[in-house]
Amino acid sequence: MEDEVPGSMGTSASLALRLGQAFFSTASLLFMCLRIDFYNYTAFSYLVTVMGLMIPWSLTLVMVDAYSVFIKYLPHQPRILLVIIAGDWVLSFLSLAAACATASVTDLLVEAGGSFCPAKLCSRFQLSATMAFLSWFLSFASSLFNLWLLPSL
Amino acid sequence: MEDEVPGSMGTSASLALRLGQAFFSTASLLFMCLRIDFYNYTAFSYLVTVMGLMIPWSLTLVMVDAYSVFIKYLPHQPRILLVIIAGDWVLSFLSLAAACATASVTDLLVEAGGSFCPAKLCSRFQLSATMAFLSWFLSFASSLFNLWLLPSL
Repeated sequence: MEDEVPGSMGTSASLALRLGQAFFSTASLLFMCLRIDFYNYTAFSYLVTVMGLMIPWSLTLVMVDAYSVFIKYLPHQPRILLVIIAGDWVLSFLSLAAACATASVTDLLVEAGGSFCPAKLCSRFQLSATMAFLSWFLSFASSLFNLWLLPSL
Repeated sequence: MEDEVPGSMGTSASLALRLGQAFFSTASLLFMCLRIDFYNYTAFSYLVTVMGLMIPWSLTLVMVDAYSVFIKYLPHQPRILLVIIAGDWVLSFLSLAAACATASVTDLLVEAGGSFCPAKLCSRFQLSATMAFLSWFLSFASSLFNLWLLPSL
């Protein structure tokens, strides 16, 4: 217990990070999906796919962290920690890519204006891209904190 | 010398990685810049900016590695290694973001077709995005190899 890193698996900081990831990725998905023909644009479909992977991943880890914080502290097992670090890395790269793709396409649509992008729709694309960036940032933070643990295993 | 990781600073594998980075980022920049009004699109300007940072960075490290391989082995200094790792990380994230943004905007332009994207221009955008992805991949690889060294310092 004495070498516990704040933000690594099973601490309350990690629980907060995971909750933030779940919240932002859900928000990004909803802003993008609801009543928008997002499948017309490759970048938007990609964002929806990545967020569809991100949400179950963060919710699972929210449950693990909540169990560890509130009920019983779970000791780190190297193999499980490796899987979690690898998953976090892959997802953080995917979500960075999705956020950048969405942001750049949105920017292009905003400049094109007119029928490509009615004002109400465009602000939703922008919100969705912002949420995706926040979700990337939190996921990157928790993968860094967990990486810190790796040498001690 | 016995704990030298292949691909870390000062080895011939690292020299090859750096040469690849310099080559691909230069190619990406040239495909994007030459006789194209790239500054009409935010994503393309961003790509040009990032590649303009990436090229001097890789060329500097090419020189350091070449000196270390061919003339005299330089021992690792923790402080310099930290700067190099941090720089590699930042640049690899920036170049991933630039590559994704360029790829998604290019995809949108290809679908729009017509005057937005004459066939000859569009294939150059695609080549530029591909080169940027390759450059990201190599820069990510060398940052991982150098990260591996960090605990031994």
